[in-house]
Amino acid sequence: MRIVRIEHNGAAHWGQIEDQSIYLTGSVTGARTGEKVALEGAKLLAPAEPSKIVCVGRNYLDHIKELGNDTGDLPKEPGIFLKGPNALAEQGGTVEYPAWTQNFHFEGELALVIGQRARDLKPDTALAAVLGYTCGLDLTARDLQKTDLQWFRAKAADRFCPLGPWLETDLNPTDLRVQTRVNGETKQDGRTSHMIFDVVQILTYVSKFVTLEVGDVILTGTPEGVGPLQKGDTVEVEVEGIGVLRTQIG
Amino acid sequence: MRIVRIEHNGAAHWGQIEDQSIYLTGSVTGARTGEKVALEGAKLLAPAEPSKIVCVGRNYLDHIKELGNDTGDLPKEPGIFLKGPNALAEQGGTVEYPAWTQNFHFEGELALVIGQRARDLKPDTALAAVLGYTCGLDLTARDLQKTDLQWFRAKAADRFCPLGPWLETDLNPTDLRVQTRVNGETKQDGRTSHMIFDVVQILTYVSKFVTLEVGDVILTGTPEGVGPLQKGDTVEVEVEGIGVLRTQIG
Repeated sequence: MRIVRIEHNGAAHWGQIEDQSIYLTGSVTGARTGEKVALEGAKLLAPAEPSKIVCVGRNYLDHIKELGNDTGDLPKEPGIFLKGPNALAEQGGTVEYPAWTQNFHFEGELALVIGQRARDLKPDTALAAVLGYTCGLDLTARDLQKTDLQWFRAKAADRFCPLGPWLETDLNPTDLRVQTRVNGETKQDGRTSHMIFDVVQILTYVSKFVTLEVGDVILTGTPEGVGPLQKGDTVEVEVEGIGVLRTQIG
Repeated sequence: MRIVRIEHNGAAHWGQIEDQSIYLTGSVTGARTGEKVALEGAKLLAPAEPSKIVCVGRNYLDHIKELGNDTGDLPKEPGIFLKGPNALAEQGGTVEYPAWTQNFHFEGELALVIGQRARDLKPDTALAAVLGYTCGLDLTARDLQKTDLQWFRAKAADRFCPLGPWLETDLNPTDLRVQTRVNGETKQDGRTSHMIFDVVQILTYVSKFVTLEVGDVILTGTPEGVGPLQKGDTVEVEVEGIGVLRTQIG
């Protein structure tokens, strides 16, 4: 099932996609209200209301290499950083190129949204805590990653986390193609099977330290091929089985 | 005025403290409902409902020195890291010593809670965005600060941010004594006038990059004197003009 969040009559609503229509629901997993709107032309919102956005860094070997980081000593545990809900941006949205960076990078990723409050998840049941999967764009001020004490400006600024277009609930995350295109040109083309830590390992690790709340977002890391953006660029993140997340750089 | 958040009849309520009583209010800044409970014996909650907790690291010169960090090149901008709302803990609460750290540290701090949605605050009006001030305990797994890709386990785990006992709305933050005691022994004794970046500078800096929402928390950094905790310790953070935040290490 595809679960979508839209702006409709001036308010945010959750809904389910079926036959090019959106059937509004009372909440993210609630019953249909009976109201229906066309998918085409609907104003999509980021499909999550997180208390936190948990991101995995350096989760693909070739991405570690391309950034010049040490690969002789691979991470023994997922490397985690946080964004706040202020970072969310929506399908088709414009993210302004910040005046304070000279090297604004795209990182396309598989993202997931939590559907059940979870702590200390076990490997065999961890995926049951996931409501659905979507496409994430981990925007990064690459030049500030080294000067920030922690990646605050570099990763957590307003609208640095476009998410969408919707949640796909029926998906096996173990081997999905993840592509990022800039102005139609393919820049990243990886597979989630190349992750150093897979979705189950990420969920069990993260939930050892923090309680995952309903609506929380996890970004699972980016494959190789990251690079700089320019004003006017169109970025597309496509994850197999989900769809395409489009972002304009303003 | 002192604004407090309590658990009462199984639900969370905001209230105002007057003459040892709590006058319940409809919301954090709402009108009094008419209901009143005794302050003594009330179960206090962390006095904030944040979308994010923004923390300043290395904001006191002597604390930079004690951690062995370079002081020849003082930070030109505040060093920021994030915790999520999962990190909150309440007045009088117990925080379990995590099994996964061997060096669990206290850092007592002045904290503030945002009262108005704010972006790009200007120095002369920044303090108007603050609803009130409280005491914060920035619990830190010191041994994991170096091994975490970013300070996730080290700083952002569940209950790593005790906050309280209440918000003091009428306070000038520029020169307040900040003390931390462990089992009654004074470990930290600093003044907010020794901050490298004062509250106004922190607010203007942070709000350049992220929108501050009502309820967001900012921890302003810790003075020198941080150190390890043991199971069974009682930690008290006292900020002049506010009160004492007590935490048990379980």
